Parts: sequence; C-alpha cells; structure tokens
Amino acid sequence: MADRLWDKALPLDEMVHQFTVGDDPEIDLEIMPYDIVGSAAHAIMLEKIGVLTSLERIELVRDLRELWEQAEVWALSISREQEDCHTALEALLTQRSEAGKKIHTGRSRNDQVTTAVRLWMRDALMGVTDKTLELAEIMLTFAREHESDFLPGYTHWRQAMPSSFGQWAGAYAEGLFEECEAAEGLWNRIDKNPLGGAAGFGVPLALDRDYTAELLGFTQVHVSPIDVQNSRGRHEAAFGHWLSSIGRTLEQLAWDLMLYSTEEFGYVRIPDEFTTGSSIMPQKRNPDVLELMRGRCRELRGTAATLDMIGSGLTSSYHRDYQFLKKPIIGMANQSAILLAIMARVVVKLDIRPDAARDRVSNDLWATQAAYDLASSGVPFREAYRTTAQRVIGGALEHPGEQQATHLGGLGDLGLERLAERAQAARTKLNEREQKLKMTMDHLWSFVN
Amino acid sequence: MADRLWDKALPLDEMVHQFTVGDDPEIDLEIMPYDIVGSAAHAIMLEKIGVLTSLERIELVRDLRELWEQAEVWALSISREQEDCHTALEALLTQRSEAGKKIHTGRSRNDQVTTAVRLWMRDALMGVTDKTLELAEIMLTFAREHESDFLPGYTHWRQAMPSSFGQWAGAYAEGLFEECEAAEGLWNRIDKNPLGGAAGFGVPLALDRDYTAELLGFTQVHVSPIDVQNSRGRHEAAFGHWLSSIGRTLEQLAWDLMLYSTEEFGYVRIPDEFTTGSSIMPQKRNPDVLELMRGRCRELRGTAATLDMIGSGLTSSYHRDYQFLKKPIIGMANQSAILLAIMARVVVKLDIRPDAARDRVSNDLWATQAAYDLASSGVPFREAYRTTAQRVIGGALEHPGEQQATHLGGLGDLGLERLAERAQAARTKLNEREQKLKMTMDHLWSFVN
Amino acid sequence: MADRLWDKALPLDEMVHQFTVGDDPEIDLEIMPYDIVGSAAHAIMLEKIGVLTSLERIELVRDLRELWEQAEVWALSISREQEDCHTALEALLTQRSEAGKKIHTGRSRNDQVTTAVRLWMRDALMGVTDKTLELAEIMLTFAREHESDFLPGYTHWRQAMPSSFGQWAGAYAEGLFEECEAAEGLWNRIDKNPLGGAAGFGVPLALDRDYTAELLGFTQVHVSPIDVQNSRGRHEAAFGHWLSSIGRTLEQLAWDLMLYSTEEFGYVRIPDEFTTGSSIMPQKRNPDVLELMRGRCRELRGTAATLDMIGSGLTSSYHRDYQFLKKPIIGMANQSAILLAIMARVVVKLDIRPDAARDRVSNDLWATQAAYDLASSGVPFREAYRTTAQRVIGGALEHPGEQQATHLGGLGDLGLERLAERAQAARTKLNEREQKLKMTMDHLWSFVN
Amino acid sequence: MADRLWDKALPLDEMVHQFTVGDDPEIDLEIMPYDIVGSAAHAIMLEKIGVLTSLERIELVRDLRELWEQAEVWALSISREQEDCHTALEALLTQRSEAGKKIHTGRSRNDQVTTAVRLWMRDALMGVTDKTLELAEIMLTFAREHESDFLPGYTHWRQAMPSSFGQWAGAYAEGLFEECEAAEGLWNRIDKNPLGGAAGFGVPLALDRDYTAELLGFTQVHVSPIDVQNSRGRHEAAFGHWLSSIGRTLEQLAWDLMLYSTEEFGYVRIPDEFTTGSSIMPQKRNPDVLELMRGRCRELRGTAATLDMIGSGLTSSYHRDYQFLKKPIIGMANQSAILLAIMARVVVKLDIRPDAARDRVSNDLWATQAAYDLASSGVPFREAYRTTAQRVIGGALEHPGEQQATHLGGLGDLGLERLAERAQAARTKLNEREQKLKMTMDHLWSFVN
Repeated sequence: MADRLWDKALPLDEMVHQFTVGDDPEIDLEIMPYDIVGSAAHAIMLEKIGVLTSLERIELVRDLRELWEQAEVWALSISREQEDCHTALEALLTQRSEAGKKIHTGRSRNDQVTTAVRLWMRDALMGVTDKTLELAEIMLTFAREHESDFLPGYTHWRQAMPSSFGQWAGAYAEGLFEECEAAEGLWNRIDKNPLGGAAGFGVPLALDRDYTAELLGFTQVHVSPIDVQNSRGRHEAAFGHWLSSIGRTLEQLAWDLMLYSTEEFGYVRIPDEFTTGSSIMPQKRNPDVLELMRGRCRELRGTAATLDMIGSGLTSSYHRDYQFLKKPIIGMANQSAILLAIMARVVVKLDIRPDAARDRVSNDLWATQAAYDLASSGVPFREAYRTTAQRVIGGALEHPGEQQATHLGGLGDLGLERLAERAQAARTKLNEREQKLKMTMDHLWSFVN
Repeated sequence: MADRLWDKALPLDEMVHQFTVGDDPEIDLEIMPYDIVGSAAHAIMLEKIGVLTSLERIELVRDLRELWEQAEVWALSISREQEDCHTALEALLTQRSEAGKKIHTGRSRNDQVTTAVRLWMRDALMGVTDKTLELAEIMLTFAREHESDFLPGYTHWRQAMPSSFGQWAGAYAEGLFEECEAAEGLWNRIDKNPLGGAAGFGVPLALDRDYTAELLGFTQVHVSPIDVQNSRGRHEAAFGHWLSSIGRTLEQLAWDLMLYSTEEFGYVRIPDEFTTGSSIMPQKRNPDVLELMRGRCRELRGTAATLDMIGSGLTSSYHRDYQFLKKPIIGMANQSAILLAIMARVVVKLDIRPDAARDRVSNDLWATQAAYDLASSGVPFREAYRTTAQRVIGGALEHPGEQQATHLGGLGDLGLERLAERAQAARTKLNEREQKLKMTMDHLWSFVN
Repeated sequence: MADRLWDKALPLDEMVHQFTVGDDPEIDLEIMPYDIVGSAAHAIMLEKIGVLTSLERIELVRDLRELWEQAEVWALSISREQEDCHTALEALLTQRSEAGKKIHTGRSRNDQVTTAVRLWMRDALMGVTDKTLELAEIMLTFAREHESDFLPGYTHWRQAMPSSFGQWAGAYAEGLFEECEAAEGLWNRIDKNPLGGAAGFGVPLALDRDYTAELLGFTQVHVSPIDVQNSRGRHEAAFGHWLSSIGRTLEQLAWDLMLYSTEEFGYVRIPDEFTTGSSIMPQKRNPDVLELMRGRCRELRGTAATLDMIGSGLTSSYHRDYQFLKKPIIGMANQSAILLAIMARVVVKLDIRPDAARDRVSNDLWATQAAYDLASSGVPFREAYRTTAQRVIGGALEHPGEQQATHLGGLGDLGLERLAERAQAARTKLNEREQKLKMTMDHLWSFVN
Repeated sequence: MADRLWDKALPLDEMVHQFTVGDDPEIDLEIMPYDIVGSAAHAIMLEKIGVLTSLERIELVRDLRELWEQAEVWALSISREQEDCHTALEALLTQRSEAGKKIHTGRSRNDQVTTAVRLWMRDALMGVTDKTLELAEIMLTFAREHESDFLPGYTHWRQAMPSSFGQWAGAYAEGLFEECEAAEGLWNRIDKNPLGGAAGFGVPLALDRDYTAELLGFTQVHVSPIDVQNSRGRHEAAFGHWLSSIGRTLEQLAWDLMLYSTEEFGYVRIPDEFTTGSSIMPQKRNPDVLELMRGRCRELRGTAATLDMIGSGLTSSYHRDYQFLKKPIIGMANQSAILLAIMARVVVKLDIRPDAARDRVSNDLWATQAAYDLASSGVPFREAYRTTAQRVIGGALEHPGEQQATHLGGLGDLGLERLAERAQAARTKLNEREQKLKMTMDHLWSFVN
C-alpha cells in the first residue's frame, strides 16, 4: 500500500516544479493585497525620482487599486505556473498597460516579498491585538458581574484560600492586556520600511526610501539591505512567539474551564454549543471545543518553534529557505484570531454555578484570614498561625465574617477600575494606529489621479 | 557499570529532599540580592500601614542592607537544609533581630519569589541590552572603518552583487539595535509590582501595593494576584525568546565569520586568540570559539523552548513546577551576556583581507549596475537586462565605473549616521533607566534611618 | 485591512462546526483505506463470535473491498458535514446494506481511528524505509564509482586530511542504513493490534482480539484499552522523531552539496534541473532545491516538536486534542518520502569535479601520513609530529606517496562491501515484511466469499 | 546591579579559556571510566598490530585498570587546565609509564570521545531500561492487587465507563514495556564500534577495528570514519527522544495521580513522604514531588529539542559544537533514572480509596453495558442505544449486574498474564546483555597480564 503515497512516478521537472512552488499559490493570496500596496508606493516613488512619467504612475496606481479591491475579496487567483503572487501581479499589470513592464525597476523579489509580508504582519499584529483586547474586555465584564461570587482558590491543585469568579476573570483580563502592551516590542521591530533593499545590497538607482516609508506608513526606514534579508525569520519568530504567548493564556483558560466543569468540581457549565454528546452516554457532554483549543494552542507553540528552526542557523543575506516561513506564520495569526474569537463566545455564554462554588469554600479556607485576625490583635504571626492550625484540625474554625483583603487585587478590591483604564488606553492606542494607517491608505490611493 | 550512576540506595526521605531542593541552593544565590531588596520594600510598607513600628523597620532595613552588600559580592551561602534563598534570608534576619520574625507578615513565598525573579529579570534585561548595544556600536565602528572595502554580496550562497565590509557590518548593527527596541515589549511585561499577590489570592491586610511599587521602581502594580502567578512561565518564555533572538543574530555573525575565514573564501582572519591548533597539523587554525558560540546560540533556542514547555499547559495559579524556571532563564541571561562580550572582542580584533575580497568582486557582479546604466539611457529594463546578460556570457562586461547605489542603505550611502542616531537614542534611554533605578535604590536604602 | 481575515461574522454554530471539523475531511482521505481494512477485520471477527451472520459478513466485506479499491485511488470523498472518514464510511456501508448498521457493534471511534492510523503508520514506516534504503543504495553506488577520487577532508570547516568522494558518499550510505536499523524500535512500538480497545475501557462483548490481530497482520495484541489511547501522541512523536532524524541526514547532505558547489569550493556541480537562474545574473545558478530541502528538513524537526507538544502533558485516556496529531504526522511522512526521492535524483545526476577537488588536497594535508611514516620507523609519535610540523611550516613536506590507511573505513579500504551486506540484509527484511503483509491483505479480502 | 553578573573584567585569554572549557571538567567525570575502557581496547589492539610491545600493553592495561577502579568511585579529578578527561587521562598514563606516550598513536580526540560517549550511552541505555522495566513491573503488581477495585473511566475528562485500578495500572505497565521494546532501535544505532575513525578520515595505520569491536563488546564496526562524526548529535537526539518518551508516560502518570488525589476526585492519597504542607493551612497536603516530576518530564522534552538543535544543521564531519552535546544527554539520562526511581517508590506506597472510587461508578456508567445486554437479545445496537439512553435520562437505569467485558484487556480479563510474559522476556534479554558485557569487561581486563 505504501507506494500509493509517494511513487507518483512524476517526471523530474514536474516533481521539482511542484516541490519548489510548494503552497505558494494558495498562501500568497493572503499577502497579495499587501504586495499590491507595496507596488503602488514603489510606483509613486519611481515617478518622484524620474523613472516613471506621471502618466505611467497614474496608469499603474489605477490598475493596482482595482486589483487591490479584487484581492481584498479574494477575487484574484495564482496559477501553479505563476508560482507566487509576485509573478501573478506582474502578469496582471503588464497585461493591462505598457507601464506594467517598468514596475520591477529598482526592486527585486527579495525586498518585494519582505515588504508584502511586513505589511501583512503589521495588519495581522493589529488584528490579533484587537481580538486579544476584545477577549480581555469580555473577561473584565465577566469579572464585574461576578465580583462577589465565591470560588475556591487553588494552589498545587489543592483548595487553598477563598477567591471569587471576579478575581479569576480579572486575572485573564490583566494577562491579556499584557500581551497588548508587549506587542509594542513587535511593533518596533516591524515599523521599518524594507522596500528598496532589493536583492540584499541595494540597487544602482537613487531610490527615495524615506518617501516610500511615508507612503506605506512606516515611521522609519529599514536602512541596511542586508539586515532587511536577515530580518526574515527573525521577525516571524518574534511574531510567532508572541502569538504562542497568547495561546499559552488561552490554553490556561481552557484548562481552567475544563477542570471547573468536571462532574467532580462542577463550578461552571460549558455552554452546549461548545460541547458534543457521546455516541453511547446521553448524560455526557464533552468539552470538545476546549480540548481542540488546547490542542491548537500547543500547535501554536510548536509552530513558533518551527519558525525558529527554519529561519535561523544560516549565514547572512537571502536564502531560499525563507519561502517556508510564510505558511506557518500566516496560519498561526489566522488560527490565533479564530481561537480568540471562539473563546470570547464561550465566555459570553458561560454558566457559572455560584452555589456549588461557594459551598466548596469551606471554613478551612478562611484559616489565613483567621490567623491574620488573631495577629492583628497583637499575637505574633507565627503563633497566630499555630493557634489557627489547631482550630482547623479540631474542626473549630469559624467563618471569620467579612473579608478583609482590601488591598489592590484582593477580594475586597479587585482593582477592576485600574484594569479598565488600561483597557481604555490600549484601545485608544490601537484605534489611533488603525486610523493613521487608514489615512495612509487613502493618501496612497489618491495617487490614482 | 550502569548502576554506578543511579542506584545510590538513598533512603527515601533523602532522595525526596534532594529531588525537591534541586539546584536551588546554588541558583538562588543569583536572586538573593533581589529577594533582599524586595524584603526591604515590604518592611518599609509594613511600617506605613502600621504593622511594624518605626524601630522594627529600621532594624530590618539595616540588616537587609548589610546582607545585600554581602549578597552582591556572593558572600552569603544557602545550605541544602535551607533549600532556597527565602528560608536562608528569613533565618539570617531572625537571627539578627526580633523584628525578623515579622518580615513574612502579609506576604507568601509565592509573591516573594516572583518579586525577586522579576527584579532580577529587570536588571538582566538592562544588562543584556547594554551588552547588545555595545556590540552594535562596535559593529557600527567597524562599518565606518571599512565603508569602502569591497566584499562580494551573496544570495543563495552564490556571488551576487558588489557589497562592502561596511554594508555587512552595518547590517549587524541594525539587527542588534532592533533587539534593543524590541526590549520595550519585555519591559512593558515586567514593569509591574507583583509584591502583595501573596499565595495567589491576596492577603487579609490593607497592604499598600502602590507604595511598594514606588519603592521598587515599578511604574504600575501587577493588580491580579492570580495573574501574578500566571505570569510565571509567561515572562520567562518571553525573556527567553528575546535572548534567543539575539542568539540567532550572534549565530549568523559567527557563521559569516567561519565561512569568510575558510581557506576557500579567505576574506577575514579569525584572530589567533579565538582559534586553536590541531594536534596534527601546524598550518591549521580552527575557529573553535565561533563554533562553540554557534552551539551556545542553538542551546539558547532550545532552552527557550524548554521554558515554554515547563511554564505552560497548566491551570491558573501556583504550581510547584515553576521552581524549574529559574535555572534555565538565569543561565540563558548569563550565557547571552558572555556571548555578546566575546563576540565584541572577536570583532574588535578581526583582521580583514580587503584585497582577497575585492578580487572576488569580479566584473560579472556589476551586471546589475550595467543593466541599470543601460536602462537609465532609456532602454526598457527587461531589454537592458537581456543585453547585459549576453555581454556577461560573452565575457565582454566591463566594470561600470563608479557605484551609483546612492540611496539610503546602498553602497553609496550606507546610512551609518542614521544608525548612529538610533544607537544614541537607545543608549540615552538605557542610561536614564539605569539612573532612575539607581536613585530608587538609594531611596530604598535611605530607610535605614 | 485586518478584519478581512478573521471577522467572518460567522454564525456561532457554523464557526464551531468549522473549528471542530478542522482539516479532517481532507486529511482523512489518507487514512480511509486503512479504516476500511480495519473494518473488514472487525466484521470478520464479529461473525466468528456470533454477532454477525455469515451472510452479513460477506456483504460487509464485499462492500468494504469495493470501497477500499476506490479509496486506494482517491475516488472517495468526505463532506464537511460527515466531518471524518469514519462517518463517511459508515454512511457508505449503511447505504449499501442493512448489515452496515451493525459494523459499529463492539467498537468505538476511539479504537477505530487508532487502528486506522496505526495501519497507516505501519505502511508509512515501510514506505519511508524503502525510500531511505533506496537513497542509501544510491550513495553506495556513487561511493563505488568515486572510490579513488580525492576530496579534502574537513574538520571545523578547515582542510584537514585527504579524503575521497567515495569515503564521503559511503558515510551517507551508512548513516541512512542506521535509520533503517533504528526503524525496528518503531516497528516494535506499532506492531500491536489496538482494535477492541473501544472508547478506552473495552466493551461488554467477547471480542476475539487475537483473531483481529492475525487478520490485520499484527504480531501481538495491544492489551490495555487505556494504553491504546495513551499511545496516541506517543507513537506519533516517536515516528516523527525518526523522520526528523532522516531529515537531519538529508539536511547535512544538502549542506555539503551547497558548500561544495560554491564558486569558492567548486568540488561538485548541482545539476541544472535542481537550480534556478537569477532574474539579474545569467552566470548565476542558485541551488534552490537544496535550500528548500534544508528548509523542509528543519520543518520536519519543528513538526516533530509540535507532535511532542500536542500529544503530551495530559492525563491518561482519550482527549479530543489527539485529532490534531493526524495532519502533522501524515504530512511529515509524505514530505520525507518526497525529500528522499528528490535527493536520490540529485545524487544520480550529480557532477563532480575531481580535478578541482584533488588539487585542493595539498601536500600539507598529508602531514598526518608523513608523521606516521616517520613514527613507523621507530621515532616516538609526539616527536615525529613535531618534525613533520616543522617541515610543513618550512614548506618542505613532500607527498608521502601511497596512502596507507588500510584499516576498515580508511581511504585504502572504504568497507563498501560491508555496507553492501547491510544494505542487502535491510532490503531482504523489508521485502519479507511487505510480502507477509501482502499475503495478510489477500487473506483478509478472501473473506469476501 | 546588572554588571555584577557579567562584567567580570576577565583578561581575554582567561575568558576564552573558560568559555571553551565549559563544563567539561565536571561532566567528563561521567565518561572518564568509559574513556579508560576504550583506551584499554585500543592498547591491546596496538599490540596485536605490532605498534606496542607486549610489555607496553601490559603496563598500559594495568595502569588503566587501576585508574578505572578509581574513576568508577569518582576518585579521579580533572583540572580546568586539563580541560577534559582525555587530557587528564593521558597525563595520568604518561606519568605512570613511558608507554603512556604511545597510547594516542592511531587515534584522535574525535574518535576517542565518540567511543567514550558511546560506551557510556550503551550503559545508560541499559540502566534506564532496567529502571523502566522495574517501574513497569511495579505497576503490574499494583494492577494484580487492585484488579477488581472499581474506578470511573474517563474520556474528555468526563466520567465515561466503569474501569478499575487494575486496568489503569496495567496501562502504564504496557506503556513502559513498549519503551523497553523500542529501545531495540536505539541499541541498533549504537551497537557499532567507532574507535579507529580518528579525526574523521581514518589514520595511516593498519588498525584492526574488528578486534577492538570485539574487545568492547560491539556487534559490528561503525565503518565510515565520516559517519562516526556525523553520528554525533544523531545518536544523542535519538537517545534524548527516547528518554523524553519515557518522561511523557511518567508525566501522564503524575497527572493522573495529581488529579485523582484532589479533594474533588479523592480516589487516591499521595503518601505523605511525597507531599509538603503549606505554611498557612495545616489540612493542606501539596503533591510537590509529582509537580516537580511533571516539570522535570517537560524539561526532558525541552532538552531533547535542544539536542536536536545543537547537533543538526551542519555540514558533515567534526565541528566543535558537538562538545555541548555531552552535558544535556548525560543530565537527561541521570534525571530519567531518578524520576523512574522516585515514581516506583510513590506507586509502592500509594494509598487508594476504593470506596470513593467505586461510589463514583454510578449506574449511568453502566449504560454501555446495558445497551449491549439489550442488543445481545436481538435488538439492533442503534435502537438498544436509544432505549438505554431514555432509561438513563429517566433515572431508570439499573446496574446490569456482572461485568461482561471478557475480551482481552476488558474488565473481565485484564490480560495481566500476557503483560507479565512480556516483562519476563524483556528482563531476560536485558540480563543476557548485561551478562555478556560483564564478560566482555572481564576479558578486557584479563589483558593486564
């Protein structure tokens, strides 16, 4: 049976062609709109430095804009003969105007693909940040609603101290905000215009790279053409590890929900929409969606490791290996967005079982509080602890009454306002960036005239 | 022979003790100074909220300061019975004053270790950033010195276009600056005060967490006690991947140097200090230091993956597994600093062989330039390319004369000034941060009175 | 632009359905023939224990055989509504006969998919072993042809001692044979019948698991139904790491060829079929296929790590996460087979440049030989070494004449006969296994009557 | 504070020395006995081919044997100046006899270290196999003792079907036996004599490599000197992944025990020896040892990935990077042995709570059995399933009485005898191997006369 898989008895040239093309015709549809945008900026700049006439620039930008609109709705396609979006785009342009033949002046495939991928990455970074922020905001809302619903707090998977659903959900809000704040480091990495780096050593033309930076909305120029190439793999790995860090938090949330929804814990109920029945037991609801989410989050970690491997361990400058960076990173970003969107819906629909959870917060869990109460009356803490311990063992520990963890983050003050402020700040920053890039795009396409 | 390794016939309790203690007594020496600093802030805050008297606070801060000075010069030790730096510290304090018994009020091991590790991480981040910047500056100096020394530019490991040692070194400068800029994301992650999170759910006392944040130089409070625990593993992984990204660039530089110093390429000579002879061939100089650097850089990637694995795939809140995060991340930071320091010394002493490199920049490598020259006289580029190609094949390509890649990053304008500005900006920012933290420490220790 | 990717505004049920189905409809086409084979064995056994009548069994086996023939030529399809091959198969069977409704008696999806995957894995293991052996044999032939073509031997990327193309190629033959020998460990893992494990705890029927083992060609029964489930992930990881070990060797071979074919080394010429031209330099031939192979080999390592992550860190028994193990392992096996097939074609067509290689084997490289010659005349080795060293430095080293490394593996006796014997043994074993399984299949389908 | 860590202001030569030496002086103590054994075989062979006199051989073997006895009890040491065990050994030999100066004739550091590591790996493989088998046997004993103690069987972390402690423990026995069976693949990899490969290209002497193979107990010669070097990294990775597969199973067992011992599940009690108390709650017993075991198992996976990275992505033949393979693989083997030993002790002392577990096997879990009972009376299974389902929902499902899963592996026949047979076979094979190698060693040291 084995040979059905691989012995396709392909002629050599066909085998080699298939191998070198790989998944590009499919994958490149994702970056094609960005390749078009990069091409428009390039054309506008070429006019500025006198390589194109104003008429040629207008023709090119007009055609590019039309193609962009099609690419945005996935209306373009790439044949296996064309191999990638760059050839497909050049063919489309050449077919539409004589000026199309000039679009490749002053650039190379190497800076062209890097530009397209970087523009995609910038959008993907904002897109995933948006989804991350969205889930964080949902967790915050959940926290507000369940601020005083008790939940046992666990350490070492053992009941430890009183906690609440609010405290639990607030943790995820803060953890996810952190990812948005950490995204700044990534933004710094990619907010640099690679266009003009050519094959990796520049090109004998007086390109105006500051101008294309402005047209594309980059704050600065990625100066070194060699480092433009060296950044391949480095950027994908950094982006991938950020996505896998988000995945880590999603996985943790999924774990919590799977544990808390077991028959044995019973603190939450996974909404039916996210479970499946068994083929044998009608009472059984399996948390498949959360299990698959856990699997996908682990896959994110693995794929980030793959990006690390493909894009490192090489000398400087361009190597063809970099072609294989595209699929994993695009897949990771899309997958992350889906996971965040699904988790947001799970949480919105989540049923909690406050009574079951509160019942599990037995008097013993208040031992710390009791010890502190005693200590606050002057007894040294280590002694207060021993006294309380004996009361626990003797079953004589009473509920200490009102919770006194009034410090920031404690049960008495979850600090949700502070977190809300951070949410607001992150949201504002993201909106401003999106607004600015929207204006950049409007400006770019204004060169159609 | 096998059993000599493992069948130590240890009594069970001893085996379990050794297993649970692990490498902590040794590793914790690295974080002990930070544990002391965190304890000082805690003590000062405890006075503010009325838990300690002013006298007790003075006693504690005085003892802590003395211990800190010893810890800074590795003069303290941790016994295997004490297991970790926290127990060792409490023992030292208790032994010195009655107030020592009160230092643990209002905190738990869980927030204590997180605080110590975070303070360490902040320092380590600044330390590695400093070393990275240093190497980047050295590369920049090297680039300036060799701005016009030709070097063949390679793509696909094939001679491609003219480049220069200056362009090559500038690439590494820019790549390393990027790491410094990316460090902002990490800084955002860790610039949050975890102290007061206690075991993971707060503590029944009105701790003033804003105050300890200020005392420790944190911009904000890590609000959620649960997320304080969830951040373990998340922070280490993020830090680890940043270090491995620096390692990726170092490895790339090492690869370049090893390739360029082969007998076959011969563009540089590795300084003797960094090579070893063979036991059999006197003419042979092996680039051992660079090979080992490559190995260490790969190890960095692997250890970052290990951190990913240890610190993820768990439910929320504290798990004992987190103990094993300390050794890898501390080892990685130290190793990275060493690698950066060694590479800086390699580059400073590097011999280049400008003649050998220039000779390899044959006329053929100027083909692109020739085609562009032709195109600039009005011939469409694709046609100019074909004409040039035929001249190359016919051996009739002449050196086109002066280089015209005058755009930013091209051979005619390496953009070293821009990179120098970025270096300056990064250096200034780092200095300000170090200055601010120095003042924070001075302020903290002023509570000795 | 960001939202074009993810905000598909899908209704929740559709989003969840797409998420849970994943790539199964496409991936499962690979394991569908194996699911059919497993089902046939199950049906035959059900008759044996009296659950099916002989007529029902005949109907089922007849239908399964027809479907198997179609599945083998990819003529079946799985709709997204059916989700996976198991539902598709049951639908096809039920549609064809009343007996189809009984095929699921005594089994569960959990053992069904494990059986299908294991049968696939057994075939894939033999298939990749075959390709590995094939490449090894080609290397051996190459070694024989170039037994006495000199090549400098390198250590630390520095010329070290005389070697030959034959010695170089023989190394790869031996390395690849090792993978075939190591495959025995994997074979031991998977040569166990999982069918009958049901959901993970068996089923209240007197299944004859020894009988299905025999029908499916397994040497033993995978006894524990819980371990049948626990083996998911464990087997994929083990298989994946074996594939990545083969990939490691392929990558090493690709590296050698890329280095030896640089203009600077120039010992081999990559056949044109495996290179591409540059868009700018006609003299340039880029080794794209080898670069892409290197990238794919690294991807293999990364994907093996992904399998490690998905399939571990869980409690025992079935988890839905295991669904995501299928795509990576199937992809890896197919990719490995392709890489081996392409490399075999590269080597067959490889041009070597014996003169260039021999010229690089300068007199200095014979220093070891000279020292040994001296030592053999009674001078202590350390002294002979020093004398030779001085002659090298003085440029007075002469070629020592005939090579004397006559030991096994040395230039005078490459040991190719021994390797050929191992090749023969491995080939014989593989053939026997294939033969035996072919007979097993014939026997299975004989139950059509 | 940062600079306390790295700015050691070391003189360059000292920094480079420390960097290149790394941890070798410490690590090499582990492989020193093996280096001694390899040296003895080499010396005996040198006499056979006439390089040493019989007297010299006797002197050398006598000294080596004495040193070996010391090395076995860790009585030798390696100074930082000596760098590694090879230099230390040569120094010791030279110091003891004139013949010591001749021991290095006909070998190189490269084959010497490979031989030592391989001999170590062979022992480590047997040692870990022994520990794995031991734990498997303990699980089997546990399974026999608790054959009929009910335990709910889980799928998707939801109660699914009746299972038993015996079925659960048997699964681990079988999973661990599989590792022993899989070890054969590894054995095939390493059962080849690398001695005589010299620096990677052989040596100009008529070494008798078959003879050293016999003296060292290898079945065959590792023929190709280049592949001897290429095997570095390949062998370590393969061994590492096998160890991490064992770790995967240990982690799974640890997860099960941690889950089953929660207050919420309560099926087992972790023995006190393996738990720690809380500093605040006397009723709390934390399963620290199991959590740390989980962390260590994950570390094993990470370290295996590190080995993958260090030892791949290189051209053929020797690179200095391989030095860094030693520490991780030795650490992994030792750690694995410790984890297996500790887990064995946990299981031996494990308390189960049969009543709590049985109570959780509610009537609903017998639904499958009930459906099958119904089906066995002639009702089609899909209909029987629906009827049973309605009885479950209506709460009318009665316990079906006696368990009928009498097939191999089912509750009625756990198949422990079969597993015991496999245990016996694996044990016998291991004993024979150990016996044979013991005799090999006796034979080797008999050359002392």
